[in-house]
Amino acid sequence: MSEVAIQRLINKLHALVGPAGLLTDAQAQAPYLTDWLGKWKGATPVVVRPANTAETAAVVKLCSETHTPIVTQGGNTGMSGGATPDASGAQVVLSTTRMNRVRAIDPINNTLTVDAGVILAHAHDAARSVDRFFPLSLGAQGSCTVGGNVATNAGGIAVLRYGNTRDLVLGLEVVLPDGRIWHGLRGLRKDNTGYDLKGLFIGSEGTLGVITGVVLKLFAQPTAHATAWVGAESLDKLVDLLSLMRTRCGERLTAFEMMTAASLQLVLDQVADTRAPLAQAAPFNALIELSDTDDEAGLRDLLEESLGESMETGLTHDVMLSSSQAQTMALWKLREGISQAQVRAGKAIKHDIALPISSLASFAAQAEQDVLACMPDARIVNFGHLGDGNLHYNVLMPPDADYDALKQRTHELNGVVHQLVTDYGGSISAEHGVGQLRRDELRIYKSPVEMELMLRIKQAMDPNHLMNPGKLL
Amino acid sequence: MSEVAIQRLINKLHALVGPAGLLTDAQAQAPYLTDWLGKWKGATPVVVRPANTAETAAVVKLCSETHTPIVTQGGNTGMSGGATPDASGAQVVLSTTRMNRVRAIDPINNTLTVDAGVILAHAHDAARSVDRFFPLSLGAQGSCTVGGNVATNAGGIAVLRYGNTRDLVLGLEVVLPDGRIWHGLRGLRKDNTGYDLKGLFIGSEGTLGVITGVVLKLFAQPTAHATAWVGAESLDKLVDLLSLMRTRCGERLTAFEMMTAASLQLVLDQVADTRAPLAQAAPFNALIELSDTDDEAGLRDLLEESLGESMETGLTHDVMLSSSQAQTMALWKLREGISQAQVRAGKAIKHDIALPISSLASFAAQAEQDVLACMPDARIVNFGHLGDGNLHYNVLMPPDADYDALKQRTHELNGVVHQLVTDYGGSISAEHGVGQLRRDELRIYKSPVEMELMLRIKQAMDPNHLMNPGKLL
Repeated sequence: MSEVAIQRLINKLHALVGPAGLLTDAQAQAPYLTDWLGKWKGATPVVVRPANTAETAAVVKLCSETHTPIVTQGGNTGMSGGATPDASGAQVVLSTTRMNRVRAIDPINNTLTVDAGVILAHAHDAARSVDRFFPLSLGAQGSCTVGGNVATNAGGIAVLRYGNTRDLVLGLEVVLPDGRIWHGLRGLRKDNTGYDLKGLFIGSEGTLGVITGVVLKLFAQPTAHATAWVGAESLDKLVDLLSLMRTRCGERLTAFEMMTAASLQLVLDQVADTRAPLAQAAPFNALIELSDTDDEAGLRDLLEESLGESMETGLTHDVMLSSSQAQTMALWKLREGISQAQVRAGKAIKHDIALPISSLASFAAQAEQDVLACMPDARIVNFGHLGDGNLHYNVLMPPDADYDALKQRTHELNGVVHQLVTDYGGSISAEHGVGQLRRDELRIYKSPVEMELMLRIKQAMDPNHLMNPGKLL
Repeated sequence: MSEVAIQRLINKLHALVGPAGLLTDAQAQAPYLTDWLGKWKGATPVVVRPANTAETAAVVKLCSETHTPIVTQGGNTGMSGGATPDASGAQVVLSTTRMNRVRAIDPINNTLTVDAGVILAHAHDAARSVDRFFPLSLGAQGSCTVGGNVATNAGGIAVLRYGNTRDLVLGLEVVLPDGRIWHGLRGLRKDNTGYDLKGLFIGSEGTLGVITGVVLKLFAQPTAHATAWVGAESLDKLVDLLSLMRTRCGERLTAFEMMTAASLQLVLDQVADTRAPLAQAAPFNALIELSDTDDEAGLRDLLEESLGESMETGLTHDVMLSSSQAQTMALWKLREGISQAQVRAGKAIKHDIALPISSLASFAAQAEQDVLACMPDARIVNFGHLGDGNLHYNVLMPPDADYDALKQRTHELNGVVHQLVTDYGGSISAEHGVGQLRRDELRIYKSPVEMELMLRIKQAMDPNHLMNPGKLL
């Protein structure tokens, strides 16, 4: 883009969004040009921050007319580089963060309507203010936006009971690639009047349009919680325990998080104020949570009975029931400390994979063999949302590994792990999306038919390929 | 289509599916050429009944090459004429009913994989055989197929807790309009690797491809049920009761079905062996069901307490708790008897609508005024799935009305009801789909932007417009 063309674009954008809606200064732009991990870096002629849907529509229309590519960005907390512009300097960054109004709360219809730029934690607060519950929960909830959650179909720790973001959205408002607005902000539980447009935009990572408004589903506020930590001899036994807990506790089962002994030890080694929850280390651990709208004593009894049964039948060899809020927080700290512990422990090659739950144990056994054959001095840090079949299957490089070695081995190890995932009918990106990170791999592991269908849809919806080019497809 | 062309097509199809896969005899074809209500009638050169996915793919490929339109049909229980060919005699009917294998049951992964032609009730049986539960439940379950349920995104009586068919499908196998197969039979809870192709086929009514296989989600088998009938003075109060029940009972609330006094009276008048559940008739009634994996006594206590609270706060003025399986069945007979009662009572103009739950009462009050202004001697039969905001809002014509009058008034009355639905942000087809019934109305009540997006997707996926032409779009 020539200097003259850039200045002309900025002048036109200025007329649409005013000075508060533009960032042209390099220092002000900087946070928008890299992801929070600092893994990707890009450039932009201008960061545009429209104040509302009408301004967004005007900006997108101008970009369409001037053939300017758009990278939409919410809280910029993504894991796959989906919101970072490329290095060309030709892609405008459209930040939704000024659009942060709660538009409507309807506790009778159990819906919450928000601007796309509302922070997830603020959506939680809004629901709580009318004694309702919005269940989407993830580490970045203090800074990620609802629009970003929708665009990436965010997962997190409540999927087992409440589903992914896809399952929590009733309606969308979207600015289309030509600047027109699709008004799909419906708050309906049933609507069979044509193709699922909403579902197409969810998880499309900004490649089909700019999401500006969302209708979210609300739920009854759980009033009772019960938490336990269990140790088991094998992943097989933990999977059987998951089945037992589902059969006994039904929808009360809210979390079933798995950590291998090595994952737990990493946290104990690296994170301050942590201690082992069981007297004797177990090869596999699970953090289990029940929640309910009923009284807590009954829920604790149910958890105790179910886990008692698991001890008797040999599914678990040790169980620790949390008896206080402080103890529960300490258990969650072990689970949530893994990310930090990994960063401290060195360089890791990470995989966010999903498998049929019935294949998890056999996959993990085979993957360990294959990974160690490829890199004998690696440490495998395997943990994740067992109830969703979602493993964060990470491989810690030897302490002396440098960045060149990491880069070189990443490609090789991704091939080993992702081919095995595909052989087991799994997904190479369970909840982190594709972005730039997995874009090239998608072509390897998706069938040509599926790739073609996705490209045809992209062509139909964004014929000029101006929405987040270089991502996903 | 000329006689020669038809004979050539039949010969080629014969080579693909053999004699058992073809129906050319007029008498054998007859049941496939009209819907079960006898509302639509069509013609076909041949009914093809492939035995498996490979045969289906070969048939679709041949139809693509010969520019032959295809109408896919499952159990032929649809409400909107979506599976009936037109009168041209050019459209081949592709029946999935010979594809009726249960392919796999995985109680650990909680998935059931079936051919599209498996009868819904057989899917229930398969789930039950491994102590699991498949919740989709509707009147036609003894004859409708899972493929048809998916193609129409079927709703029914368990949506409040378990969602629509869309929420119950993890994977699909689809023969595309050119005869290639999309192998999307995944059994994963999380998969963020691109556009939601599965969601696009669900509810697309056979206009984008032929669904041949489905992976369904299974759930824990509920072991306890508790049922009650309540009477309330207004729809507003019933809506508030729904909120109360959700807050108190959470996910246990499985059904919340509404019947007006007129709807109940119609059943009592027309259906044998029915009697009023409450001593005094109430303007509005609800059939409420809780279910759980826990013990039944606790569940009954919870229902009793919650409804006791509703009596104290004046939300209900009478409550009847079912104390036996026979009593529960008698209550459900009242709800399920409405269809039959309406048929006996005369001609009706029917609407299957959804509204935000918070708007139901105000909509119903306004609709009654508008409908009676248009047709003063009509009887309004309003009932439905209150928990989903889904009303079956039917208008019984005067007993002396003839078919010409019915036809003439239908158009007018649809306009009155559906315009009001649209004004309230509702849907003109909550669970019955579009088919032929609502196709022309879709253009009136959907925005041009939304219609255009749907047409672009149709064009991208089925460029020759051979899949179920004349339906939905």
